[in-house]
Amino acid sequence: MEYIIDPKEIEKRSMEIISDLIGPLDNTVEEQAIIKRIIHTTGDPEYRHVIKIHPEAVANGLEALRQGSKIYTDVRMVLTGINKKKLAQLNSSVECGIDREDVIATALKTGETRAITAMKLFGEQLHDSVVAIGNAPTALFQLLKLVDEGIRPKLIVGTPVGFVGAKESKELLETYDIPYITVAGFKGGSAVAAAAVNALLLQL
Amino acid sequence: MEYIIDPKEIEKRSMEIISDLIGPLDNTVEEQAIIKRIIHTTGDPEYRHVIKIHPEAVANGLEALRQGSKIYTDVRMVLTGINKKKLAQLNSSVECGIDREDVIATALKTGETRAITAMKLFGEQLHDSVVAIGNAPTALFQLLKLVDEGIRPKLIVGTPVGFVGAKESKELLETYDIPYITVAGFKGGSAVAAAAVNALLLQL
Repeated sequence: MEYIIDPKEIEKRSMEIISDLIGPLDNTVEEQAIIKRIIHTTGDPEYRHVIKIHPEAVANGLEALRQGSKIYTDVRMVLTGINKKKLAQLNSSVECGIDREDVIATALKTGETRAITAMKLFGEQLHDSVVAIGNAPTALFQLLKLVDEGIRPKLIVGTPVGFVGAKESKELLETYDIPYITVAGFKGGSAVAAAAVNALLLQL
Repeated sequence: MEYIIDPKEIEKRSMEIISDLIGPLDNTVEEQAIIKRIIHTTGDPEYRHVIKIHPEAVANGLEALRQGSKIYTDVRMVLTGINKKKLAQLNSSVECGIDREDVIATALKTGETRAITAMKLFGEQLHDSVVAIGNAPTALFQLLKLVDEGIRPKLIVGTPVGFVGAKESKELLETYDIPYITVAGFKGGSAVAAAAVNALLLQL
């Protein structure tokens, strides 16, 4: 059986097929790159209809990443999915708190989840950073509480997934005047969050 | 805003909602657990219609994992997503070749992709193992060539994603008389592969 094996060629062809599948979009070219990469990652063209991008998300996200701002994630799968080669070129890095010893110890003491605890312990470090939440609605709710307290990430990629709290957490994110990339409804996940970040990284 | 924050409670409620959403299934309870966990992970009830489970997949997969068989993956995101606590309880482990030095060196020499090279270098180790391919169609095609040569994994979780080769690789997998879990069409990905493996692990 013959098939394309060059990863770059596969990706190029994939993006062409996605463009054909979803047809013209009203979004900017940079925003389209985010939408297409998420569809590339999920194999699901329906994302076209549910991805929500704040008008300043691309500019703010690119500026933050260009300046080497750190990326904070809720789960290790988002961290794993982010393009480390591009990050290194930009002198940036990515951190996940869920397995950190102080997070585990604090969560045991307070009875709060590790996802919530990690966001609290990151605290002011999240200011001017890029935060990518791909799994836990509770992490996104906690992050928005920090925003209420004056901590402003440059960009929030908020794509918690699932049927309990995820939709609500993303709807709440959309009410904030802070640059975000999110997904309406139940869909999302760590691969989606990583894809959104990578779509920005690949524009630098 | 009030929301459920206990992760176990979230998961239980989520599974109940998924059961209501997708209605009754013809599959066995164990197979349903796989289907529901994939939907839980993707937020996408449409997976109900595209997940394909070989009749011996659950029995073979559970047997392999119970015996501590190793899990091999194509990409680090699958490895990251697999439940390490359960793996440790079963004296099992998971390995990904994509970043291995010998894989990188061999791929540079042969000009083949690292995904293909990793499968080739795993070679006979894949016999009686669980192989979870969540990203690269080329890895799945290569694995099936090894099966042609007599190497038989106990279970192949094959859910490469995307628009170039993924669908074809999964259709080819379905023609093999080897226990598999796969997804028809474009959808899939590393989170889906990890979810399928975790659904089995959680039954042990």
